[in-house]
Formats: sequence, C-alpha cells, structure tokens
Amino acid sequence: MGWGPSAVKAVVRLGVMATTDKEDDVFVDSITLFVGLLCGCIVVGHFLENTRWLNESVTSLIIGLCTGGTILFLSGGRSSRILEFDEELFFIYLLPPIIFNAGFQVKRKRFFRNIITIMLFGAVGTLISFGIISFGAKELFGKLNIGDLELQDYLAIGAIFSATDSVCTLQVLNQDDTPFIYSVVFGEGVVNDATSIVLFNAIQKFDLSQVDSEIALQFVGNFLTLFVTSTLLGVVVGLLSAYIIKKLYFGRHSTDREVSLMMLMAYLSYVMAELFDMSGILTVFFCGIVMSHYTWHNVTQKSRVTTRHAFATISFISETFIFLYVGMDALDIEKWMFVSDSPGKSAGASAILLGLLMLGRAAFVFPLSFLSNCTKKLESDRIEFKQQVTIWWAGLMRGAVSMALAYNQFARRGHTRLPGNAIMITSTITIVLFSTMVFGLLTKPLITWLLPSSGHGSNAGSPKSFSRPLLEQEPGLDAVMSTTNIHRPSSLRMMFETPANTVHYYWRKFDNSFMRPAFGGRGFVPFIPGSPDGSPTERNMP
Amino acid sequence: MGWGPSAVKAVVRLGVMATTDKEDDVFVDSITLFVGLLCGCIVVGHFLENTRWLNESVTSLIIGLCTGGTILFLSGGRSSRILEFDEELFFIYLLPPIIFNAGFQVKRKRFFRNIITIMLFGAVGTLISFGIISFGAKELFGKLNIGDLELQDYLAIGAIFSATDSVCTLQVLNQDDTPFIYSVVFGEGVVNDATSIVLFNAIQKFDLSQVDSEIALQFVGNFLTLFVTSTLLGVVVGLLSAYIIKKLYFGRHSTDREVSLMMLMAYLSYVMAELFDMSGILTVFFCGIVMSHYTWHNVTQKSRVTTRHAFATISFISETFIFLYVGMDALDIEKWMFVSDSPGKSAGASAILLGLLMLGRAAFVFPLSFLSNCTKKLESDRIEFKQQVTIWWAGLMRGAVSMALAYNQFARRGHTRLPGNAIMITSTITIVLFSTMVFGLLTKPLITWLLPSSGHGSNAGSPKSFSRPLLEQEPGLDAVMSTTNIHRPSSLRMMFETPANTVHYYWRKFDNSFMRPAFGGRGFVPFIPGSPDGSPTERNMP
Repeated sequence: MGWGPSAVKAVVRLGVMATTDKEDDVFVDSITLFVGLLCGCIVVGHFLENTRWLNESVTSLIIGLCTGGTILFLSGGRSSRILEFDEELFFIYLLPPIIFNAGFQVKRKRFFRNIITIMLFGAVGTLISFGIISFGAKELFGKLNIGDLELQDYLAIGAIFSATDSVCTLQVLNQDDTPFIYSVVFGEGVVNDATSIVLFNAIQKFDLSQVDSEIALQFVGNFLTLFVTSTLLGVVVGLLSAYIIKKLYFGRHSTDREVSLMMLMAYLSYVMAELFDMSGILTVFFCGIVMSHYTWHNVTQKSRVTTRHAFATISFISETFIFLYVGMDALDIEKWMFVSDSPGKSAGASAILLGLLMLGRAAFVFPLSFLSNCTKKLESDRIEFKQQVTIWWAGLMRGAVSMALAYNQFARRGHTRLPGNAIMITSTITIVLFSTMVFGLLTKPLITWLLPSSGHGSNAGSPKSFSRPLLEQEPGLDAVMSTTNIHRPSSLRMMFETPANTVHYYWRKFDNSFMRPAFGGRGFVPFIPGSPDGSPTERNMP
Repeated sequence: MGWGPSAVKAVVRLGVMATTDKEDDVFVDSITLFVGLLCGCIVVGHFLENTRWLNESVTSLIIGLCTGGTILFLSGGRSSRILEFDEELFFIYLLPPIIFNAGFQVKRKRFFRNIITIMLFGAVGTLISFGIISFGAKELFGKLNIGDLELQDYLAIGAIFSATDSVCTLQVLNQDDTPFIYSVVFGEGVVNDATSIVLFNAIQKFDLSQVDSEIALQFVGNFLTLFVTSTLLGVVVGLLSAYIIKKLYFGRHSTDREVSLMMLMAYLSYVMAELFDMSGILTVFFCGIVMSHYTWHNVTQKSRVTTRHAFATISFISETFIFLYVGMDALDIEKWMFVSDSPGKSAGASAILLGLLMLGRAAFVFPLSFLSNCTKKLESDRIEFKQQVTIWWAGLMRGAVSMALAYNQFARRGHTRLPGNAIMITSTITIVLFSTMVFGLLTKPLITWLLPSSGHGSNAGSPKSFSRPLLEQEPGLDAVMSTTNIHRPSSLRMMFETPANTVHYYWRKFDNSFMRPAFGGRGFVPFIPGSPDGSPTERNMP
C-alpha cells in the first residue's frame, strides 16, 4: 500500500534499461505521448483562438479522439488500451487544482453579491434536475429493456447527469460585458459540481431498499451537514495559511516558501476533507476564496504574481489533460464491444438521457428565475428571458465529472460486461462527446445572438481557460463598487430590497475590525520592502 | 497498463465512500499525512533558518525519521509500511523538476566559464571514484563474508556511492562571496548525477561476464554517445520551445499558455530522453539552460516572474519531499529484520563504504586540482588547498540518487531476503543518513572556518534550496562581466591562457548573429506591451 504513484505497478526503469522490459517502455511511452499531445493542444488551441466555433476544450477532445483512433488503427482494431479513464487520477490529482483555482481567482464581490441566486440554481436546481432525470430514466428505460438496473442505479444516473460542465460557456461569455450572467453561470458550476458529487456519494452510502420519511430526513440532514462542515474546513485551513504566513514570515519573506506553503495547504484542505468524509470540492473552493482574500495579501509581490499565474497554469493544464483524456478513452474498443449487439439500445438510452437533461434543466432554470425576479423590485435586477435561455444553455454540457461518476457507479465493480452497465458507460461517453462538441460548437454563435454585447469578447492574450476572464484583478473597479454600492441601509425597506448588500456591509465591518487585523488582507499587511502601501495592485509591473 | 497514477492499484473513492473500504482510507491517509508533514517541514525549516548547524534537508530527514518512528511505535513495532521508497516516483516525478530548475536558474556565464573544471571533476572524477569504490568493495567485502555478490554488483556499488548530493554544501556556500567554488560544486553535482546514473545503467545493460578490450571500448563509446546525444536533445527541445513561443505568440502573449508550454516541454524533453534510452538528467538540465537563455526572454514579464518562482517552488517541494521520504522509509522494519542476525556485517560494510567514498573522492579532487592549477598562469585562478578541501567535503554527502540506484540494483528483483542484498540496502540507508546528518551538521562550521568570507551568508528571504542563491538575476553584474572579460584574443598565447573566454567570445558572436535572431533572447525579443526594452530585468518589481 505505497504512497500515490509509488503504488504504480507498471515498473519503470531508467533509460538504457527500458529496452529490456516491455512494460516499462509502454509506461514512458504513454507519458511521452501524453505530454507531447498536451503541448500540441496548447499550440493548436492558440491558433484556433479567434475561430468562431472552436474552443480549447473541443480542440483537446478532438485531438484526443484522433489519437485514440490512430492507436486503435495501429493496433489493428485490437485495442486502444494505452490509456484508461481513471477516476482516482481525476478526483485526487486533476480536479482539486481546477476547483481551487476557481475559488482563488473568482471575483469575490460579484460572487457573494449573487450568492442567493447561485445557491438557488446550484443546489436547489441540481436537486430538481436530479429528481427529473432519475424519475424519467426509471420510467422510460423500462421500455428499452436494458439489463436490470436497480433503484440505486437510477438515482445514480440522476446525479451523474446533473453534474454540468460550464467551461465551454464560460469561455465564450465576457465577464465585463455581462458580469451578472457570468458570475451566476460560474458560481452555479462550482456549487453544482459539489452538489452532484455529494448527492452521488450519499446515494451510494444509503441503503435505499426501504425508503421512509425518516431516512429521507436523515439524508437531507447529512447533506446539509456536509455542506456546512466542508465549507468551514476550507475556511479554517485558508485562515491558518494566512495566519502562518503573516506571523512567521514577518520581516523575512521568502517567495518560494510562501508559494510552496500556499500550494501545499490548499491541497491539504482537499485531502483532509476527503479523509474526514466531507466534500473536498467545496472545501478547496472556499479555501481558495479565503486564501485570495487574506493569504495572498500577506506575501511578497513576486509571490502574488507567481501564485496568480502558477495556479491558473496548473488548472489550465489539468483541464486540457482531462479533455484529452476523455477523448482518448472514448474510443476504447472493449466497452463498445458489449454494446455492438444492440446499438439501438445504447443510442436510445443516450437520446432519452439527453432529452431528460435538457428538460430537467429547463424545469428549474425558468421557474427559479421567475421566483428570483419576484423578489427584485428594480427592473434592471431581473433576469431577462434571453439571460434565462443563456443560463439554461450553459448547463447543458456534460464533462469529466459525469464520466468519473459513471465509471465509479458502473465500471468499478469490474462488471462492464453486464449489458446494463456497458450501456450506461457508452451512453455517458456519447452524451459527454455529443454535448461538448455539438452544444459546445453552437455556444459561441448562440450567445453572440442572445447577448450581442458578449460573445465576441475573446481577449487575446490569455488562455481561455475556466478561470481566464477572472484572472485580471481590477482594483479600480472594485474600489468604485465598494464605495458606491455598499452603503449603510437607511430604512427597513431598503434592507429588504438589497439584502446581499446589507449583509455585505456588516461583513465588511466585521472583516475590518476583527478578521483582517488577525489574518492580514488588503490594507492590513505587514510592511513588505519595496511595496510601500502593501496593496495588491500590480501597477508596478509592466 | 494505465497512464501513470492511473495504474495506481490502491483504489480511492470519494469522501463518504471511503469509510466502506479500508484500502482507500490508507491511501488518502498517506497523502494527507505526507502533505501535512511537508507543510510542517517548511514551517520548521523557516524557524531554524538562522541556526548554525541545521538546514532544511536535515530538518526534513529528522521529521521523516520521527514520523517513521511514531508509525512504527503506533503499529506496535509491526511495520512502518505506510510509505515505501519508490524509485519510479523518484526518477519520473521528483528528480526532473529539481534538475530542470538547476539548469534554468544556473548562472550560465559562471557555469560555462568553469566548464572544463566542472567536467573534469564531474565526469573524470566520478569515474575515478567509481573505480576506487568498486575495486575496494570487491577486495574488502570478501573478508566480511556478506552473501554472494557478483562482479556486476560490485560495479553497481561503485556507481551507487559515486553519486554525490551537494545540496547541503550549496545551502551553506555563498555564491557572491565565493563564486568560483560555488559554481564548481554546483556544476560538479549535476554532471556527477548524470555520470553516475549513466554509468549505473551501462553496467546493468552490459554483459560483464567476459570483459575484453573490445567491450570496454564499446562501453566508453556508448557512454560518450549518450552524453552528446542527451545534451543535444535537451538543446533541441529548448530551442523548439523558444521558437514556438517567439513565432506563435508574437503580439498576443498569454501568460498561462506560455508557462504551461515551458513546463510541459521541459518535462517532455526528460521523458523523451528516457524513451530513447538517453540520460534524462543531462537532457533536462541543458533544456533548462537553453530555456533560460532564449525562451525566458520571449515571454511576458509576468511569465518571467512566474516561471522563475514556480520552477524554484516545485523543485523546493520535490527536494523536501525526497528527504522526508528517505527519512520515513529508513525505519522500515522489514529490511532491518534480515540484518539483525548479523549487525556487525552491516555496520562493517557501511564503515568500509564510508571510508572508500572519502578515499575515492580524495583520490581525484586533489590530483585533478593540481592538474587544473598547472594550466593556470595567474595565481588568483588557481584552486587553493582550502578550496580543494571544501570541494572534497562538498561531495561526501550521499542522497536520494544513491538510494534510488541501490533499490534498483538490490531490491527490484524482489529478493531483499537474500542476505547480501539486505545488507547493501541497509548500508546505503546508513550511509545516506550518516553522511547527510553528521557531515551535513559539520558543513556549516567547517566552511565558516575554511572560507571565512562565506558560511555566514544566509540570505534570509529565500528558502535555502538547491538553487536558492541562483535565483536572483544580476543583469548589472552580467553586463559588466560581458564587456570586461570577453575581449578579442590578441595573441595565440593569450588564447591558450584563456581558452574558455575565447570560446565564449566566438560563441557570443555566433549567438548574436544567428541564434538570437532566430530563437529570441535578451535584446532580440519581439516587442512586449509595457516592457519598453524587452529586457529581463525585474527592476520594475519591488
């Protein structure tokens, strides 16, 4: 039971020895191929940056598919088993940096201002979608006669296909032109990831053979506890990092140590959450938010630049890696073999699920938007119909989270050979490929049409990653917002109209009086040589 | 045969599921423990920074030993098998970033000015040391009667104990006070790593049962070919990265993409070398040098800061990881069990090897220094006796490379149960621990005494990593050196006296006329918005 890669069974040896051992060669082979392809994706993605249709995810997916096809062809159609989708790799190594970076780079003010809408869509909406997909699948799959799936399987299907992948849409949306839509789609994506994974785990854990109201209540209780404790753990680890760097490094900052500590503590928060049976995704997301609010201000200017870009880079590589990986794995012949007897069933299941997920999403986006609009007095605060369609569309894509959950449910017990399981795996792959490529390709034109001010907004000069448009800090804008929008509520009516702003006002007060003096943060940083005001602006950097 | 960690057999599942599976828990457990300890090492290392005796490697080693001891105690002396030294992890994931960073951050002018001395010590010296240790072990081990070791084993022992670990000394030496010693010790360390690993692989590959002059010649030929081709591959990949970034990214730079591409191509050079049966260490080292000479100048200012610090950080984490790992593994009870019957033999073997490695090093440092001094006309250019002692001392420590090679030779065929193999493994651990801790602790006082101008030079403000003192670029000093020291040779005699400078002169000419216009580099960079002169100075950054 070695540590991580130390348990890797494929033994690798150095250079000249590799020739003596077939297995080694294949292993170094795979790494070389993969790293080379990643470089290729980045270069090709850069070329296609200004294309109207393509984006980096689709590019990686296509390159992955082509490579998988080539391997399949070279091996004479026998196998493309050089790579295999691996949920451990995904959940332990690739997902944490992406989610952490999302938290680290998110524009916190915008995120928290829209937190109610975000939670509504991300948590409540995901539950509605989960219910509809589970119920629909249970009703409709019976007619297709695909293997014997149990109640737990149907519930898992609901959770699997409720996990959206809004990367494609975020790459197209322009944060500055449409800040509201952007922050809702972005925030919903993160909360949705966490909700669907927590839901999926809860389903696997609970004995669902006898469902009664007590178990249902217990389920809801667990769910909420998990949400709260995971968030708290992330906040605590984030604050701890801020405190350590503020106290220990005072007067003798060290860029490499600071960056190392931030990286390691972020990852620590994730694995701790996993160890304590919490949701690592929520934990690491909030750890990222806290780190960027406190810790980031306590480090040197060089550390600030390095962390901003190093975290974004690692997240960018992980994302490209995932799409490439999914693309390469999709063609693996073994799983398709079992389905080839009944291609109609697999296609039918995919079509049904695709229909259900579109329906499931529509069933909460429009009603919840209506609900949200009812509480808003100002016309400008309401969610327009075109914006509702955009939000609906943004959540139609399915990605790596769905893949990983599907593998966990239907492939881990080693019986893809059961027809029902094989069909579910191939359907998941079909839906991920179809939604990412077809819906993904339609996203740019659709959004250009729906929101004319956005869509064209491809800032050349930064990779269009999940977090790309969040990268540049805008201290100027931030400052303006904090002075104009956050004012003391003068009446009770106003407090109801702008509850988020009121909460924000008291939070600011608390933050300035207690949190920042203890943990650092903008304006409360120990003196850093060369940075006279200790502010996070990067104006000194060309 | 999955990809890398995808082949990890210890199955991990998410959060709430983990409780159902014992194996999962142990896996997430180990990661959490390890990441937590890494954070601890960094914090404790920072506290002890100004101590006269301790340094970060020793701290990590001690923390690792303590943790291993605790685990051993908690498991009731039954095992500390939560972690196991793994040479794949070491050679595929941990070593490349360290060596790449060494190349990336090395002060190239100083390195190339002393290249003859460095190659003399690093390549020729390692071969001499290898010969003495192999021969001595073969002669002396017979009297101890430890298992049956073959000729190949003795040669492997020579290679294993010729691999030095100069991190401890480099942490103490001050690059600005003693630039010559620093660059020789540093350069020798890298060339020595490469030489001993190449040597080790060559020994494992060759059939040594019948040694004749033809085989010996072939051996030398292979060795030289490997050196040249590996270096070339590194240079080619480095130049390719410079070319891609210069050509493709012109006018629309993207920090995250540039950093990703540099990271991935550096790693690509390493795995390609491994795939083509070359020395990945040499390749990635020269790739680092080329990247910092060309590629680094073609990217944005933010990318420059990010790469400098991100690479140093990853290298720093890898180093700490290795020492922690070695410390934790050292107490593993299983290997000591087989030796416990004959503790005298293991201690004897360790003592003999320790003596041999000190002798083997003395046998080349002093003669080669004498040889080097003979070619120098100026008194100031010669290597003083105290400097020779410092160089000798710097190479007495043995580290992770020795461990990895020893595991490869004596543990991979799964028979640590053979007494000879078990004794070699425990002797290696003993020597690594002893030399790192005892010699390591003596290094600071010794060097303070030998070279009074150095030793106290602990720049607070940067972690004392392998590459720490190389981190800050000194454009001012560089510029001065290039104008004063590099002059056209006016006579043949002068050319012989300063061959390195002459080579350097023609190289500069070639570089400026052909290389830089094609691949970028200082002064030949496409215009970068906000950086008026495109120079690599970081003067705008506090």
